This record gives sequence, C-alpha cells and structure tokens, in this order.
Amino acid sequence: MNAEIIAIGSELLTPFHLDTNSLYLTGQLEQLGIAVIRKTVVGDGLDDLQAAFSEALERTRLIIGMGGLGPTDDDRTREAISVVLDRPLEPDPEAEEWLRARFQKFNQRMAEVNLKQTLVPRGAEWIPNDNGTAPALWLTTHDEKIIILLPGPPRELEPLFATHCMPRLRKLAPRRAFAEKILKVTGIGESDLEEIVAPIYTKFTGLQTTVLSSPGEVQIHVRATAEDEGTALRRADELSVKLEEALGEKVFARGPETLEQVVGLYLMMRGATLAVAESCTGGLLGQRLTSIPGSSKYFQGGIISYTDDAKKKLLKVPAAILKAKGAVSAEAAAAMARGVRKALNAKFGLAITGIAGPAGGTPDKPVGTVFISLAENKREKTRKFLLIGDRERIRWVATQTALDMVRRRLLK
Amino acid sequence: MNAEIIAIGSELLTPFHLDTNSLYLTGQLEQLGIAVIRKTVVGDGLDDLQAAFSEALERTRLIIGMGGLGPTDDDRTREAISVVLDRPLEPDPEAEEWLRARFQKFNQRMAEVNLKQTLVPRGAEWIPNDNGTAPALWLTTHDEKIIILLPGPPRELEPLFATHCMPRLRKLAPRRAFAEKILKVTGIGESDLEEIVAPIYTKFTGLQTTVLSSPGEVQIHVRATAEDEGTALRRADELSVKLEEALGEKVFARGPETLEQVVGLYLMMRGATLAVAESCTGGLLGQRLTSIPGSSKYFQGGIISYTDDAKKKLLKVPAAILKAKGAVSAEAAAAMARGVRKALNAKFGLAITGIAGPAGGTPDKPVGTVFISLAENKREKTRKFLLIGDRERIRWVATQTALDMVRRRLLK
Repeated sequence: MNAEIIAIGSELLTPFHLDTNSLYLTGQLEQLGIAVIRKTVVGDGLDDLQAAFSEALERTRLIIGMGGLGPTDDDRTREAISVVLDRPLEPDPEAEEWLRARFQKFNQRMAEVNLKQTLVPRGAEWIPNDNGTAPALWLTTHDEKIIILLPGPPRELEPLFATHCMPRLRKLAPRRAFAEKILKVTGIGESDLEEIVAPIYTKFTGLQTTVLSSPGEVQIHVRATAEDEGTALRRADELSVKLEEALGEKVFARGPETLEQVVGLYLMMRGATLAVAESCTGGLLGQRLTSIPGSSKYFQGGIISYTDDAKKKLLKVPAAILKAKGAVSAEAAAAMARGVRKALNAKFGLAITGIAGPAGGTPDKPVGTVFISLAENKREKTRKFLLIGDRERIRWVATQTALDMVRRRLLK
Repeated sequence: MNAEIIAIGSELLTPFHLDTNSLYLTGQLEQLGIAVIRKTVVGDGLDDLQAAFSEALERTRLIIGMGGLGPTDDDRTREAISVVLDRPLEPDPEAEEWLRARFQKFNQRMAEVNLKQTLVPRGAEWIPNDNGTAPALWLTTHDEKIIILLPGPPRELEPLFATHCMPRLRKLAPRRAFAEKILKVTGIGESDLEEIVAPIYTKFTGLQTTVLSSPGEVQIHVRATAEDEGTALRRADELSVKLEEALGEKVFARGPETLEQVVGLYLMMRGATLAVAESCTGGLLGQRLTSIPGSSKYFQGGIISYTDDAKKKLLKVPAAILKAKGAVSAEAAAAMARGVRKALNAKFGLAITGIAGPAGGTPDKPVGTVFISLAENKREKTRKFLLIGDRERIRWVATQTALDMVRRRLLK
C-alpha cells in the first residue's frame, strides 16, 4: 500500500511556514510498511484543493490530507472532498454533541460558526480530536480507497493519528512488523564512518540503513520489517550490534539520548561532579549540560572567562602562561580546567579555549583552533583540535568534543 | 505569473529530510510578484518525475524543479524532462569544458560518470554552478512556459538562483517592485500585539502583513508591491512607522537583527561592559551574547552558579539571603547581579535565577518563577516573572527578558 500526503494552507506557500507534519506521518506509516510516494502542498482555494485530491485518488490508495478543517471561511477541505467524492455534507448530531461538550468543558461559549466543524460528508466517519475543536474525518471510497483528513496543528494531529488512525491502518496494511535501532556516534566524520559501516550494512539485504550527519555527530538508523515483531527486532539488532562493534567507543548512544544526557547519566552513576570553564564557547557547554532536568545533581556550575582578567582572577590562570603562551594554548586550557575544578569544588574540571572566528585567527592559531582540557585530582588531559566551519559550528563541535572527552574518561 | 515548485529526491519522502529550499524560493519569487501555487515532493523514480512535471505544465507557467541533477543513477531529472518535453538529451561541449575546468581548479580527477551532468535537453540552456558540479538548466517550451531545474543543496541553489535566475525572471514578471519592512518585538504576546496592530494594518489595503510568533519574540513583516521601488518602499514604510509608534519601546529591531545583537550594539555605542550570573539558564545567556562576533569588546564573562556554594563563593551572595529568601528570590538575584559585576569588573551585572522545571516548583514559587536583576554602580533593578512553557521555553524566555532589561536601560 502506498500513500500520499496533502498539506493544506496558503501559509504553507509563503516564505514563513513549512509543512513538518509529513515527517511525523512518514515515520508512522513506515512502521506499517506504507511508503509515501508524494507530498503536495496546496493553498486554501477550493479549485486547488479539489484538483489535488482528485489527482491523488487516481494514483494512490491512501491519501492523508491535513489542515483546512477549522471553522473559518478559509477552511474548505471538507467542502472540497464533498465535491470530489460527490457526497453531500451533512450535520452530524453526535459530532455536534461532542463539540458542545468540549466547549463546555473549557467554560467557553461556542460560536455558531464552529458548527461547520461538525459537518460530515455522507458515509464518512468523524474522529474526535482530544486537543482541538476540529474532528478528523475518515472516508472510504467505493473502490476501497481511503482518505483521512486531519487537523493541521501538530499537537492535535499527532496524538489523534497515533490513537485513532494507526490501529485501523495496521489492520489494512500488509501484516509487517517494524523495528528501528539508532546508534549515535561522535568523533568521526560522515565519510570516514561510511567507510567503516558501508561494507557491513550493505551485506544485510532487506534492512534499511540511513546515515544522518550533523556537526559533531553522526546517527545511524537501522530499520527492519518482518512478519513478526520478534524477527524485525532481531534483524535490526543483528546489524546494529555489528555496526557498534566496528565503531567501538565512538558510539555514545543506542537510542535518542543526547551526548549531554549520556554524560549526565555517567556522572550520576559515579556520583561525580563537573564544573566548566568556557572561553570561546561562552556558556554553550554549561547551557547544554543544564538543559537536562536534574543536572544540578552533578553539575556544579561554570565560569565564562571571556577576558584574560577573568581567567586570572576567577580561574587563577598564571599571568605568565597568558603572556608566554596566550589565552588559546594547551597550558591555558589546562590551567582553566584546574582552576574551575577548584573554584567550584568539583571532581572534574572541563575547559575550552579557542578561536571561534570569524576574526582573531593567526597563521599559528587559525580560526578553529581549540584546546580542551579535563582535569581531576591527580590526572589531567589536554587536547588540541582544528575545527572547521563557521563560528556557530566551531562552538558547537567544541562543546561536543569536550563532552565526549568526559564520556570517554568515564567509560574507563 | 504563478509558479510551482517540485522538490525531487526519495530522501525527502522519509522521516528524516524536509525540503527547505522552497522557503527561499518562495521568498525570492514573491519579490517579483510571482505566487507559488503548489509545492510537490516526489521521489527519484522516472515515472513519478514525469508525472509531476507533466501535471505542473498543465497548470502553471513557471515550474522550478530542484534536485536529481547529480551524476549517479538516482539522478533522473534531466531524463524526465527530456521525455516530457520530447527533447533529446545532447552533450554540451561548453558545459563539459566548464565541468572539466572546475575539477581541474580543485585538483580533482573527474570521473567519466560526471559527464552525465553536461547533457542538455535540446534547446535548453545550462547555467554554471559556482558551488557544485551540477549545472542548472533553463527551458522554455513552445507555449512560453518556463522550466528551471536547480541543484538540490541550498548552498548551490541559492547563489545560483539569485545570480542567474532572478534577473531573467524579473524581466518576464509583471514589473512590480517589492519592499519589505520587519519589526521585531519583545515583552508582549502575540494576541496582545494583534490587538494593538490589527486595527492599524487592516486599514492599509494592498499591503501584506504577517505576524510570526516565537517564544519571547514576535515579528511583524510588512510587504508591499508597487509600480516602482520608491513607491513600494514608501508604502511599506508608512505602515511600519505607524506600527512602531503604536508599539513604542517594545520594538527592539527594524530588521533581521537579534536581541543579542541589538544589546551588543548599544553596549558598544556606550563603551559599556556587561557580565552575567546565571542559575537556571545555565550558560544560555552567555552563549547568546557570545554568539555575536566581536562580543569580547563588551562582554566580560559570566558565572554559572548552579549551586548555593557557587553563589556564595564566587558571587558573594550572603548566606543569610539564601537561607531566609532562597536561591530563587529577588534578593538573591540582586546579590548575584552585584556580585558578578564586581567579580568581572563590568559596568553592568545581569543575573537570572529561577525554576525552569519540570521539577522543583512549590506553591509559593511554581515552575516558571524567574527573578532577573540588572545592577550598576549606583542603581539596580530587579523584576519577577512567571513564565509559562517547558524547561527549554522558560530558559529561553528568561534570557530574552534579561537581554531586554539591558536594552531598555540603555535606551535611556
């Protein structure tokens, strides 16, 4: 079974808004073995809507429309479907009862215009919307094609589709079970990673492997379908275990966790605490660590030492180091890590100093030069990196690399 | 003149990738008075591609395809167009020369497979790509329809379209000049803002006003078209000046600048320096301030005081305040601001302390309670806010509000 997605709304044809619902729907349908073969975005005009649905009906068995189910004049999806399928719109008393109850529940007066939302094309079913006032619609045509019309806002569409549409579609779709494994990797670029993993995953036929790259991180998604869930899971597992063996410690997560979550978990497991000293990243490292609820259990705080004075005064970086080696140096990074560890009384001190650009580079220390140091009681490690990209990318990858140094230290 | 955009690539039909180019193209075309009436995403299959282009040709004068111009077997856009328009693909010697020179320039060997990229449907023109190996194609049909085929990667597509396609389209489009004014506003929600601005902009017919809301910020885009640029600009100006009068100091930018850029500019103009003390925002405020190149001219640094100890030791917050009022209190915020100002020797000290959640709220101080304080030599101001949303939103809006306190102080 194939599907098409039609996103409806003139705002989606402006420079300001993108349809993002289709990512969610595509992922859901994939779990049922249903491939999306086309996505269309059309405006609110009745002619455009009718054309889009008519054309899709000629191509595809399952059509999912979203948007245009509201109470205003711009909302014409119901009308379009009514014309295309030649089914009159009829008031549905149960839908009306549901809608009135919904307004009552929130102590709101229902404007009469809202009743438009309870019109249902003859023979269609309405589906209650737990997070909005527009019910969804499910239509089956005489030749067994299915049209599902969903409300546009993601927080309405997603639970509605998951609760009410997925179970019904699962019954209709070929009975294939689906499993997905995710590996998240850092410390290696996409092409180097491909060289390692491609010879492995290309041997596993019938599995889908997707490599997604973002600054400082590569994700591998392994997706398997099979007759039953156990088999699908086993097949996805088999490949992902092989990939993980090949990548070793570069794998930092076997699921959706972020690097800062993994580092937080490791610190918590060891009852250890961390403090950070940041120069070129200016707070980004602290921000990432504290984006995790409960991070106060292991994160002591940080010092953003954006000036030499701050480095000397708050981190006790010796003036001699700053003078002889400069603020961007291995020696300064190590002194910053030691300094912040003491200042904030943490087990680990983690420091970043570098040149994020666009200005400030020299032949000796070009833009992208970053020193990262991890200090603890009787041990410290400092590394130099030459990162590429713009200011934002350099800062991000610097924090990613710093977090990974902590992770690898805690692996041992 | 209307347009359609066709995004090509099977990866755009997975849960992982969205077409974002169409936002750029829609914005460009709008400047020419060309409306995009439909966007379609199709896979790499030849049949699907042919269908998409044939259908679009029946509806629309201008069709922009993007993607599928690479050298691999999956890249079949050229082939599809050749079939749809019944124009054989022919090797173009000039395109080949250009491509060979490009490989030479980067000291790379050109694989023979790349020659596919120099095939041109009979009668079409190829357009050099300054940032990639796939030239674009421009075709005019016998009935004056235009098909433009662009490479998919944004960093190739955007400069190519701006340099080579916009000037040609400008000649073909009805001669309408375009002007846009942007107002960025903070400290007011979308619906309150609409109440102020809607009575104004609805009086200006023929102008397009778009209100875009994101956490802690609302943008108003005023767009005007007219016979000539002077008139378009004057009309957009007239409305945006009226809107700005109505919104007063809530407007922080008359263009694309971010709040951190505006604050940085104001600090620089006054030769003033800033230091920050962050509790619940954990570095986000520092990160935003230092995301601006050259921020070291006014940003001294910060202290992320995630524990009471850090507040006492590094910011000299009196233990008595922490004990009597708590770390989330007006008194603690003020002491933090004073403390960081001194510790980092800055003109202004800016402090945030609050409860970002999801845990940690109490009946007295629910999640979202945030105190922000701005201290200077003989003056200080502390305000309490009750912010709504999840952890990420609360942290973001807290920094937005803090930056805005600095901006408003510097306005005076």
